[in-house]
Amino acid sequence: MAFEFSLEAVDARSQARAGRLHTPHGWIETPVFAPVGTQGTVKAMHPQDLQALGATLVLSNTYHLYLRPGDERIRQLGGLHQFMAWPGPILTDSGGFQVFSLSETRKIDDDGVVFQSHIDGSTHRFTPEKSIAIQENLGADIIMAFDECPPPDDYAYVAQSLTRTHRWAERCLAAKSRADQALFGIVQGGIFADLRQESARFLVELDFPGYAIGGLAVGETKPQMHAVLEWLHPLLPAGKPRYLMGVGAAEDLVNAVMRGVDMFDCVLPTRLARHGSAMVPGGRLNLRNARFADDDRPVAGDCTCTTCRLFSRAYLHHLVKAREILAHMALTTHNIHFLLDLMNAMRRAILASNFTAFAADFLAAYAGNDEH
Amino acid sequence: MAFEFSLEAVDARSQARAGRLHTPHGWIETPVFAPVGTQGTVKAMHPQDLQALGATLVLSNTYHLYLRPGDERIRQLGGLHQFMAWPGPILTDSGGFQVFSLSETRKIDDDGVVFQSHIDGSTHRFTPEKSIAIQENLGADIIMAFDECPPPDDYAYVAQSLTRTHRWAERCLAAKSRADQALFGIVQGGIFADLRQESARFLVELDFPGYAIGGLAVGETKPQMHAVLEWLHPLLPAGKPRYLMGVGAAEDLVNAVMRGVDMFDCVLPTRLARHGSAMVPGGRLNLRNARFADDDRPVAGDCTCTTCRLFSRAYLHHLVKAREILAHMALTTHNIHFLLDLMNAMRRAILASNFTAFAADFLAAYAGNDEH
Repeated sequence: MAFEFSLEAVDARSQARAGRLHTPHGWIETPVFAPVGTQGTVKAMHPQDLQALGATLVLSNTYHLYLRPGDERIRQLGGLHQFMAWPGPILTDSGGFQVFSLSETRKIDDDGVVFQSHIDGSTHRFTPEKSIAIQENLGADIIMAFDECPPPDDYAYVAQSLTRTHRWAERCLAAKSRADQALFGIVQGGIFADLRQESARFLVELDFPGYAIGGLAVGETKPQMHAVLEWLHPLLPAGKPRYLMGVGAAEDLVNAVMRGVDMFDCVLPTRLARHGSAMVPGGRLNLRNARFADDDRPVAGDCTCTTCRLFSRAYLHHLVKAREILAHMALTTHNIHFLLDLMNAMRRAILASNFTAFAADFLAAYAGNDEH
Repeated sequence: MAFEFSLEAVDARSQARAGRLHTPHGWIETPVFAPVGTQGTVKAMHPQDLQALGATLVLSNTYHLYLRPGDERIRQLGGLHQFMAWPGPILTDSGGFQVFSLSETRKIDDDGVVFQSHIDGSTHRFTPEKSIAIQENLGADIIMAFDECPPPDDYAYVAQSLTRTHRWAERCLAAKSRADQALFGIVQGGIFADLRQESARFLVELDFPGYAIGGLAVGETKPQMHAVLEWLHPLLPAGKPRYLMGVGAAEDLVNAVMRGVDMFDCVLPTRLARHGSAMVPGGRLNLRNARFADDDRPVAGDCTCTTCRLFSRAYLHHLVKAREILAHMALTTHNIHFLLDLMNAMRRAILASNFTAFAADFLAAYAGNDEH
């Protein structure tokens, strides 16, 4: 079977799960963090280096690739895996989130969304059917239902939008034609228990092979995010993967794994790197800071990434100040390594039945920090 | 002996030479091309990838490193090799060329040059002694005498400047204190036979372990550049390395090796890469060009670099248009590979006694192109 998920262990004192997800381009061990390659490249990372770091799943953005270079073109060039030279599993989003957050004017109705390109202002229309057609041209292993991502705390709007998102989920299922792609449904419902529960029940009824949790990491508080995960846990089928979209701060990953999430993606590690920031246990180092100018230590003493094995903080500070591309490359490598290492550590802890202790230790280092 | 040069073969029908240069950080096989790491990093290249490409010698700029992060700081951090994680041989220039080409106001007299930083406008003074002191702090294997690089075709100015450059060469020799660095003299004299010959004779008398040829690739014609090399060939000692500064166009490398040059450096391959250009036999491909948007071929069909093995022209075109860092990384890798491969091919041809045929074939592909 092209697509298959199995649980290997479930933590006794939390909802944390370790599993394996098979895709046409290989296995994914969960919990997994997917680096983001918005435009068909994880920024400042060579795909071979990303493989060497142990990344398995990469996310790419339907909205961006549709606008440039075009999904038809990518299909003619052999599909996204071949185009971006990424032989492993790929996940594409539906384009919905970007249409609502990046494009300029947009008009939404029950059929779809008309928007203007952020690149050249040209007018385009996305519908559930169009999103699926684009994602089939791109050819990712995991594709997403087209949804609306409303402001999370406007009950009336979220409730109305949810009905539309559910109709769109049905239309995506009906439009899907390729057998080698898994289409995930996306649970919406903002920060409201009844709406989240309604959404989960509706989508579970449609029997998707996996469920994404959308509309979080968009301004809600940490307790609100945790509550949504706790409401959804008993409703989502245990035997299917759960994907929390757009979350990548270290303590958020731990808190979400603890609440039963298997999959994550986020631009945070790559974006922080391009801003000169390194993720370390308990927080971040801003390498732009003058206090690092003479610091001959690595970013993290016990880190095994090439950046920490080869470069001092002083050198990275210099590269950041001098605006050298190697600053982006080196910090991106470190940050992705840091998150992949964290996911591996959580997986090992779940398999070894000591996840709760691991999570408590890890989160203690972040006490008082708001890393989000 | 820390520094030692030996010739392995000299072409019978040209002045081309194959040799080996020993430095405290390892052997350099010549003819050699040194990628430029202006600010202590070859732009968009990880040092481990540069090593994997087979680069042996890297050039870094005294002017830039003096201004930022500071040569004293680099010395305290263990020297330039450790700072930039480059375990192989390094060459630093004297700072002279950059003072004259990059800094803002400058006042030159027989003692040295006062200039303003291009970074923050602060005032600094370089003398021959200061240049050597900085280069000793940086700790490169090969260091350069401080010289003036005048406009090449103003006879009166070049003649007057030459006297100053020769006094400065003597002062650099006197100031040098480290035994583990080789100081090269720099022949100047513009495009004038008598001045070039006078400069070569004067510097050979001072018995440097190697000789650079300065003041070329600054606007003179190809025949003028070739003539300078031909005048110098009989005057420079056969048993010492000859380094043509700032030259890196493929056909210039071949023409200069043919005329007895052993060493080169240039920003051309890295700068072209950042402008979206790939060096190929016979010329260049500008990947920004729309004709590559659907081209599924590699940049060069017979190239073995990772870029050509993994990425299509269409993908590189997309990366260039989308301003992705991977465009710089991939094209830099290809261009440096291309030049290192050319140097290796020339070396093999010299050792196999068929350099003249190799050069004729290679240059035929460039006929009618002006790649400079």
